Amino acid sequence: MKINSALSFLTPKDTKFIPLLMETAALLVEAGNLLDRFFRASGKQQKEISELIKVQESKADKTTGRIFKLLNEIFITPFDREDIHELANNMDDVMDSINRSARKVIMYSPAELPKYTKKMAEIIQRGTVEIATATDELWTFRKNDKKIRKSCKEIKNLEELADSIYEESIIDLFHGDFKTLELFKLKEVLQEMEKAANKINNVGKVLKTIIVKYA
Amino acid sequence: MKINSALSFLTPKDTKFIPLLMETAALLVEAGNLLDRFFRASGKQQKEISELIKVQESKADKTTGRIFKLLNEIFITPFDREDIHELANNMDDVMDSINRSARKVIMYSPAELPKYTKKMAEIIQRGTVEIATATDELWTFRKNDKKIRKSCKEIKNLEELADSIYEESIIDLFHGDFKTLELFKLKEVLQEMEKAANKINNVGKVLKTIIVKYA
Amino acid sequence: MKINSALSFLTPKDTKFIPLLMETAALLVEAGNLLDRFFRASGKQQKEISELIKVQESKADKTTGRIFKLLNEIFITPFDREDIHELANNMDDVMDSINRSARKVIMYSPAELPKYTKKMAEIIQRGTVEIATATDELWTFRKNDKKIRKSCKEIKNLEELADSIYEESIIDLFHGDFKTLELFKLKEVLQEMEKAANKINNVGKVLKTIIVKYA
Repeated sequence: MKINSALSFLTPKDTKFIPLLMETAALLVEAGNLLDRFFRASGKQQKEISELIKVQESKADKTTGRIFKLLNEIFITPFDREDIHELANNMDDVMDSINRSARKVIMYSPAELPKYTKKMAEIIQRGTVEIATATDELWTFRKNDKKIRKSCKEIKNLEELADSIYEESIIDLFHGDFKTLELFKLKEVLQEMEKAANKINNVGKVLKTIIVKYA
Repeated sequence: MKINSALSFLTPKDTKFIPLLMETAALLVEAGNLLDRFFRASGKQQKEISELIKVQESKADKTTGRIFKLLNEIFITPFDREDIHELANNMDDVMDSINRSARKVIMYSPAELPKYTKKMAEIIQRGTVEIATATDELWTFRKNDKKIRKSCKEIKNLEELADSIYEESIIDLFHGDFKTLELFKLKEVLQEMEKAANKINNVGKVLKTIIVKYA
Repeated sequence: MKINSALSFLTPKDTKFIPLLMETAALLVEAGNLLDRFFRASGKQQKEISELIKVQESKADKTTGRIFKLLNEIFITPFDREDIHELANNMDDVMDSINRSARKVIMYSPAELPKYTKKMAEIIQRGTVEIATATDELWTFRKNDKKIRKSCKEIKNLEELADSIYEESIIDLFHGDFKTLELFKLKEVLQEMEKAANKINNVGKVLKTIIVKYA
């Protein structure tokens, strides 16, 4: 018997939640990559990619469900159960927004996707990577929280960037000569993407709370 | 003195919250029925029906308020106080969305209400019935959770159905030859109805959490 | 050593949170006043005023952050920590909505701002003043909750007023002869303002909860 697994018996609190959170974060990264591809793809490919995103969303639904179930079964958690709950919940919100960003393009099918949508997709993708990096750090942040702090800060920067690109895009589009219907469609898509960046920032805020409590 | 009332003194925890939750659920069913009628009615009747929905909403506001007040006064609750809080909160959200679905038709007065709105109203109505059925089961689910599980599953199915009808409706309408203003109005109404189905699903999720904890 | 500071050592619970909540409330009042000015100002001044609102929002972000940090450090709080958390959270939401109300005007730049927007701004401004008045009362409401009750009631009235003005404005505008694009822009602005009134009411609800618990 290895020492590791013997120890893992003594510290059961650490061995269940973080892997599930990491699994959810990995699905987010996958969805983020797909979203980035989605906004660079042709109409035909988009349909296919949006289905793939939906698959990630269903998978994440299941890992989130497992986290919630576990929260009701396990007494000792690696950090406050409400923080685990919030983390899982907010990751779920990010996934929903990523999925909806693609769905809205499919539903409304705007005539073209302005450069802003690509920029936003890239920000969202980078945000999901930061979430995964930070989630990884949950094992060790008590000893060294430098990396997790860096990710939280980067997430905040990304949100501010998304916010200003969103504002800029609306101002630019509404002062251009798009038809009203087209403006309406693009606003729906861009707003959902801005929401995704916002939800990523909510994940960052929960991570920040956890650091503050335990570091 | 009957044995029942003597026992009820010994188990105060079960006798206050569930009746209030059932009362709220009954108001939801009433509002759901009215919403269903609303989308089949003529413009004149609609105004009247929307007022009746508003009445249900005010009543539900009061039962919700009583639940919250009780949560602060009573120490022993039939299940976790945060779950009761969430349940009441989410039921309140359902009521708000039902009310707003009707209000938005009155406010924007679209030229016609496509079949999708009727389908959505029917789904919402069925969802409120499932909420009431499940709430009834809160007395006995610890012994037998079959019925409450069935309702939770049905609620999830209804939400998925609402989701796909919503997507289909937007795609269909935006590819038809409606005027932009008309599209905008219909989207506002359908989106609110989709939100109602979503909020019903949130109630289902809380019910599911309660079962998982205690069954 | 003054008696006051000696006592403050004995009652640390009261001396940290309420001042921070008051500080946040004061920033809300400032933002509310600016919003009121914003909707009466010319286009040029608006840009400037919207920047000033953003400054208040950043400041409030910091006080909110300090409240959350303190919640993790201090064991004894003047009232339930979850209520303090909710209060700070909801105040933050109010600030966000006030900021976004102004931003949306800048982003969409509607051709004119109908009288309804001015009325809504006035309601929001009055709501922020009531929040500040009620927050002040947190020191003494256990002895006398008359004033705080009055503010809560007034906040509820303001929300109902905002709700009916919002409905009236949409009905009126959509039955006028505005262009679709213009309607769309005005709806975005008015909806955000209605949301601000709603969030103010959420603050009122938390304050009400606190009174019910402790009075």
